Amino acid sequence: MNSILTQISDSLVEKVSSTSELIESCLKAEKAPIIQSIASHLVKSGGKRIRPLLTLAVADLFNYEGDADTYLATAIEYVHSATLLHDDVIDGSEKRRGKTTANLVWDNKSAVLVGDFLFSRAFQLMVKTNSLPVMKILSNASAIISQGEILQMGVTRNIKTTEEQYMDVIKSKTAALFIAACHASSILANTKKENIEAVTNYGEFIGISFQLIDDYLDYIGSKSAIGKNTGDDFNEQKITLPIIHAMNNASNNEKFLLTEIFEKGISKNGDFERVLEILYRTKSLKFTLSQAASWSERAVFSLKELPDSEMRGLLIDLASEIVYRNT
Amino acid sequence: MNSILTQISDSLVEKVSSTSELIESCLKAEKAPIIQSIASHLVKSGGKRIRPLLTLAVADLFNYEGDADTYLATAIEYVHSATLLHDDVIDGSEKRRGKTTANLVWDNKSAVLVGDFLFSRAFQLMVKTNSLPVMKILSNASAIISQGEILQMGVTRNIKTTEEQYMDVIKSKTAALFIAACHASSILANTKKENIEAVTNYGEFIGISFQLIDDYLDYIGSKSAIGKNTGDDFNEQKITLPIIHAMNNASNNEKFLLTEIFEKGISKNGDFERVLEILYRTKSLKFTLSQAASWSERAVFSLKELPDSEMRGLLIDLASEIVYRNT
Repeated sequence: MNSILTQISDSLVEKVSSTSELIESCLKAEKAPIIQSIASHLVKSGGKRIRPLLTLAVADLFNYEGDADTYLATAIEYVHSATLLHDDVIDGSEKRRGKTTANLVWDNKSAVLVGDFLFSRAFQLMVKTNSLPVMKILSNASAIISQGEILQMGVTRNIKTTEEQYMDVIKSKTAALFIAACHASSILANTKKENIEAVTNYGEFIGISFQLIDDYLDYIGSKSAIGKNTGDDFNEQKITLPIIHAMNNASNNEKFLLTEIFEKGISKNGDFERVLEILYRTKSLKFTLSQAASWSERAVFSLKELPDSEMRGLLIDLASEIVYRNT
Repeated sequence: MNSILTQISDSLVEKVSSTSELIESCLKAEKAPIIQSIASHLVKSGGKRIRPLLTLAVADLFNYEGDADTYLATAIEYVHSATLLHDDVIDGSEKRRGKTTANLVWDNKSAVLVGDFLFSRAFQLMVKTNSLPVMKILSNASAIISQGEILQMGVTRNIKTTEEQYMDVIKSKTAALFIAACHASSILANTKKENIEAVTNYGEFIGISFQLIDDYLDYIGSKSAIGKNTGDDFNEQKITLPIIHAMNNASNNEKFLLTEIFEKGISKNGDFERVLEILYRTKSLKFTLSQAASWSERAVFSLKELPDSEMRGLLIDLASEIVYRNT
């Protein structure tokens, strides 16, 4: 996937560079310079920036000619970063993108407040787009994301979580921002209704695929490749699709073990490996991968009526490659 | 003060009632019903609602005739509530308005996320006002408030905090939202520039006075009257004006004691009473009260050029009475 992201980035080199400058310069907080250090720690830690790139790509796809796409892309990245900061406080995570998380380098208080600052900056940037529909899309997305995060708390440690509940969580907490990025950007570009629908669907479908792969990589990704710790979901007793599928296909003994670990939090040395064995035996990782592939296919399909262009080709490739990412 | 707030509320009875309904109905979160329970705990716990009342009062002062003032008032109250929720996580507070705080009833995670939800809802409501200038004012205020909260962390436990630094903190963390409420509401009402300036100044000055009295009451308010615990600032080693003034006027022994308590956190039984004695001897509480009175006078003065009306009279009374509130 990274090779496609690089190609998209290369074909939008000026936009990407102004967006990077904005992402950096809007972290400055005259009154409280410490904000910049804390936020930079996360924002500049080498994330893929898939969300702002998507935003710029969609604007380019519909030949948008203003500057507001860079404000929008920055706002989207800030909402994402704020969510990560608050997530890490909530999860007590120790690693994010291979770096010690802000909540451990500084403290939970700063992480909460800098997250709030990034949310505020995101709203300031949205206002700068000067477009009421864009602001509506983003403020709605933001409300859905926070509901998704709360939904996720409800399914954590609940081994009876259904696939449907899980899909609800990832649609809200992850896909919503991908949708908003594509939707708002196409609105800025003032393209026709069918095009807006096409890229909004695309955003939803690759957002879902992206999260499924995230949950898959949490069990088999290598530590260095994904940056965060493999096994984070396991350690936090998060119920993701691999575990739900395993529960549906496990023997009684295996179900007992999964319940002990994920619901009761009773875990001993070697349990991660035992869970991996169950996931392999029940083909649950393979199932998760195939589900991601199917959402990616839907993403590709959603772009089929759009006029052919280089960017359309890249977005199609991105959707396919998301499934094969290892980072 | 409460009697004046009641009079303002009574003279705007329909607006107040629609705003209360909005404040309640917008807490509903279809995807995650638990949000409503957590947020209601705080939002319905009998706060004075001075910020939304001010918003409605300013709209009324300039004969505003739409519905957007109720959206604005609700947004302002939600930003305030979100800040309180995150504050309580940050401060580890146990009481707010006489009730156990959300972070203790549920947990820190929910308090952070429900705060995020309230911020998002606030932005959705701002979008509903359909006014770009209003959105700009509120998103700017929101960025200033989060900077103020971070500034405050920097002065906590720093006994060398100056009066100037303290004023910077309270202007950002408290006055900014009072300013935004009055400014945005006068913009909605589409009144002339001088009027906008007058009420924006009014908002700033009563915001400062309000916070000064808060910090004063933290030392001498009765527990039942102010709802939160007297001595919270003391327990959290917050450096407020009474302490700054005391440090500037204390004997060497007293300075030593204040430094031990506020900077080093070494505190033994009876220290709160010993600090109170120092505050009385150095006349620091009296000084804080006189500062509040002087900001209130400035608030009254800022309204002097406005045409006479019942609401103008009430706002003038409010500014005066803020100094004598005990709650």
